[in-house]
Amino acid sequence: MLSTTPRTTLGRGKQRARTDRDDLYAVLDAGLICHLGVVAGGVPMVVPTGYGRIGDTLYLHGSTGAASLRAGGSGEVCVTVTHLDGIVLARSAFHHSVNYRSAMIYGLPRLVEDPEEHLAGLRAITEQLAPGQWDAVRPPTRKELAATAVLALSLAEASVKVRQGPPVDDEEDYALPIWAGVLPLRTTWGVPEPDPAMTAELEVPRHIASRTITIG
Amino acid sequence: MLSTTPRTTLGRGKQRARTDRDDLYAVLDAGLICHLGVVAGGVPMVVPTGYGRIGDTLYLHGSTGAASLRAGGSGEVCVTVTHLDGIVLARSAFHHSVNYRSAMIYGLPRLVEDPEEHLAGLRAITEQLAPGQWDAVRPPTRKELAATAVLALSLAEASVKVRQGPPVDDEEDYALPIWAGVLPLRTTWGVPEPDPAMTAELEVPRHIASRTITIG
Repeated sequence: MLSTTPRTTLGRGKQRARTDRDDLYAVLDAGLICHLGVVAGGVPMVVPTGYGRIGDTLYLHGSTGAASLRAGGSGEVCVTVTHLDGIVLARSAFHHSVNYRSAMIYGLPRLVEDPEEHLAGLRAITEQLAPGQWDAVRPPTRKELAATAVLALSLAEASVKVRQGPPVDDEEDYALPIWAGVLPLRTTWGVPEPDPAMTAELEVPRHIASRTITIG
Repeated sequence: MLSTTPRTTLGRGKQRARTDRDDLYAVLDAGLICHLGVVAGGVPMVVPTGYGRIGDTLYLHGSTGAASLRAGGSGEVCVTVTHLDGIVLARSAFHHSVNYRSAMIYGLPRLVEDPEEHLAGLRAITEQLAPGQWDAVRPPTRKELAATAVLALSLAEASVKVRQGPPVDDEEDYALPIWAGVLPLRTTWGVPEPDPAMTAELEVPRHIASRTITIG
């Protein structure tokens, strides 16, 4: 079960709330980037960034010099992962909507200092974007590790919201001669584009070539 | 030209900054949803939501009862729109990255009170998600309009960041026998799914059927 703190208990759209921890994992594991919200000088700052999950911990990373991580280190953050699944086309302008799956996580991130957890966090972040790459490429040097801060955020306080299915119109609008339904959205992989600077003729590795066509 | 206030001047990744106002419009106009950041009780809150643009104003909407809008009404917000274009697969774990286009807008939103601007804002938000729908469906009633708050956010303070192209590896890594390149991501429309509750056999309208296959 997910937490039910005041800020993870939905005020609006209650019927869209999911309360199972597996729903949270599913939204996070299907994502590629999150939007990290921090407060910097009293003002919110929303930054798209990579992430990875190990159990009930979310890992974020960034240069040790990044403003968003400095701000995040001193206060609570909100991490949101959103999958947009379709546009909901209703018979009335008012009932237009979107189908989506989203997760919001609140918490005070912890700067990872343990070298093993630091490496595991970076691995999780890399594998989230590019499964199979960590073991296929040159591992980080000591200098590269020192330049990369890793933050750990507990998944203790999180909410999940899902909307799916056709529009919900006002009773009297169903008789209108207006097409209604859902225009689905899919995220698909294109054909891998080799780096023109490759010095040898290398085949696209299976773990890249075999990624499923439709994700999210 | 875009503004060059301290918070829209990139500290990191300067070479990725775009400073032309048209670059901002292009990122916004190609998007479907944004991530709205507000500060609620000192804590950031990042909410996925629709938006629309008219000239140099961004419009956001929500129920008059939504917590995110109430919070936004009392303070500054950050609106971020992100297009993820590909995964950048480098020869080293450290240089893995993503290709993307993103825009961040900072400002104090204004609650729209003028009825004409209120309607124009709602139209822009609907048309951003579903072009052509506003004139094809039942327009909002007075009661529906009263239940929907519209916020106007000036595009005066904004930054745009773009990364494209192959990985940039360390000089000595180019000789490694490791495949490198970009795995492109595309967002595509699926086949329109008619609402099973439609009472008449209606064809999918041209403005829906003709949406281009690839967006973003």
